[in-house]
Amino acid sequence: MVAPAVEAPVVIGLDVGGTKLLAGVVDREGHVIAEHQAPSPDGSEEGVLAALDAAVEALLDDRVAAIGYGIPANLERGTGRILWATNLPLTDVDLLRRARERFGLPVGIENDASAATLAEWCRGAGRGTANLLMLTLGTGVGGGIVLDDRLFRNWVEVGHVVVDEDGRECTCGGHGHLEVLASGSAGDVAARELYGPEADARLLVERATSGDDAARDALAGIGRHLGAAIGSLVNVFDPEPVIVGGGFGAAAGDLILDAARETARREAIYPADETLRIVPAELGQEAGLVGAGLVAFEALDGIR
Amino acid sequence: MVAPAVEAPVVIGLDVGGTKLLAGVVDREGHVIAEHQAPSPDGSEEGVLAALDAAVEALLDDRVAAIGYGIPANLERGTGRILWATNLPLTDVDLLRRARERFGLPVGIENDASAATLAEWCRGAGRGTANLLMLTLGTGVGGGIVLDDRLFRNWVEVGHVVVDEDGRECTCGGHGHLEVLASGSAGDVAARELYGPEADARLLVERATSGDDAARDALAGIGRHLGAAIGSLVNVFDPEPVIVGGGFGAAAGDLILDAARETARREAIYPADETLRIVPAELGQEAGLVGAGLVAFEALDGIR
Repeated sequence: MVAPAVEAPVVIGLDVGGTKLLAGVVDREGHVIAEHQAPSPDGSEEGVLAALDAAVEALLDDRVAAIGYGIPANLERGTGRILWATNLPLTDVDLLRRARERFGLPVGIENDASAATLAEWCRGAGRGTANLLMLTLGTGVGGGIVLDDRLFRNWVEVGHVVVDEDGRECTCGGHGHLEVLASGSAGDVAARELYGPEADARLLVERATSGDDAARDALAGIGRHLGAAIGSLVNVFDPEPVIVGGGFGAAAGDLILDAARETARREAIYPADETLRIVPAELGQEAGLVGAGLVAFEALDGIR
Repeated sequence: MVAPAVEAPVVIGLDVGGTKLLAGVVDREGHVIAEHQAPSPDGSEEGVLAALDAAVEALLDDRVAAIGYGIPANLERGTGRILWATNLPLTDVDLLRRARERFGLPVGIENDASAATLAEWCRGAGRGTANLLMLTLGTGVGGGIVLDDRLFRNWVEVGHVVVDEDGRECTCGGHGHLEVLASGSAGDVAARELYGPEADARLLVERATSGDDAARDALAGIGRHLGAAIGSLVNVFDPEPVIVGGGFGAAAGDLILDAARETARREAIYPADETLRIVPAELGQEAGLVGAGLVAFEALDGIR
């Protein structure tokens, strides 16, 4: 007699981005088995929560053992309550408790950039390291930090480190923050200055790739801002490696990373100026989804 | 019959500063029972090590159960080996192992600013908090971080966060770092600009305290640089509180802290812009010594 196969549990991960909602069934190794994509919900809080529920329900079956959310939000330490979200009408919402009650499963929640960091650490460019910094350059700049083999939880707004105290006003009201100087939006601004009101960061990268010196200089300038922020954070943590991802980060690649490396080494103190490694993320657009899945497995295993 | 009194163990702590070597016998509550002070050693590595040994030997008796060092140095994670020191000829020195062999006692070692942070956390302005940032404004700027109830160890060069990427060159070769903008040395520079080549930060604080507007403005400017760096670090960690100490920090007090509070709140994102607390250190010049003592007790208790 053959013993009945015991199916390994899988989870549902949801990566709620600025432009799209990506949900998927993820296994313990971080493989995405099934995927469900929808435009990012906006409008009312009820509308957003309904869209999140619909994404779960589209994937839910008997094998699903837990749910994990990656949300562009500031979460309350300890409880996981959403204090406020970027680009989503979620303020003071206990999504974790709500989902637990609705689906009767263990639920995990994490800031989306921290979830992506968890994924790159466990399954991507940070495998095997104990301390790393991840920066995601997209519409804004997010990121995450792993310290002494633990993901630093709930509050890591690395996009809001000051690079130039008297610099351009940031989306948050601060001045010269990394987010306003090195995001895809900063790429859009540079593109419009060079090529007119219809241009965007995508065009800037295309032009630079084709050898346009002005575009290359603009991206190198963005890279220098990025490198100054990396230098700051390296001097505080000594992360090894520094992983750069996000849509803009991946598209621009060495067009910004070469300048970032040069500036970061100049700002970093010994021995980090020699040992510092700045590398591209490996999981691309799926990092947030895989990370949300890993957060679900943590909830399933009772790690948090 | 009266049971013989069992004397509680005490330890020797050594705080090796830029200008003086402070050693003391410290009890488990962080009280300094005896103190020994000497000019800070310079010259050769052998000279420095001999001066440290002499300070221990001046205080050593049968009650002393461990030794702890606070050193202005970058220490190798895990081993505590001194990689390099600021203002001391100690490069690649295993002081911990050397002291263990010489004195036959448990020995702990910590960066001096981290030791001071440990002291303020356990016995000073940070008592009862789980996350804090400490900044010591002296000849340079040092500091320490407590995250999730643990002192972040071995590498926290918060004096070398970038505040102004195109700013004045720092002692480390970087640009616009906190250390070159908000240390006592920055106070010296400002004083010389206002009052001539003999003036220093002490005079600047005296003049400001007497109501001199130029001196008050100069100190407020230093406070704004400090506030920008605090805003950066608050956005990464959400420490509560931020403790400012060091000789210059203590002397200048609210002459810099008021401006620092205003700028830090402007740069910090919600809700830290409302909850942020910047407070003076409580242990003063003894923080480093008490911290070195606590590091010795950790070694005694086998915590590290």
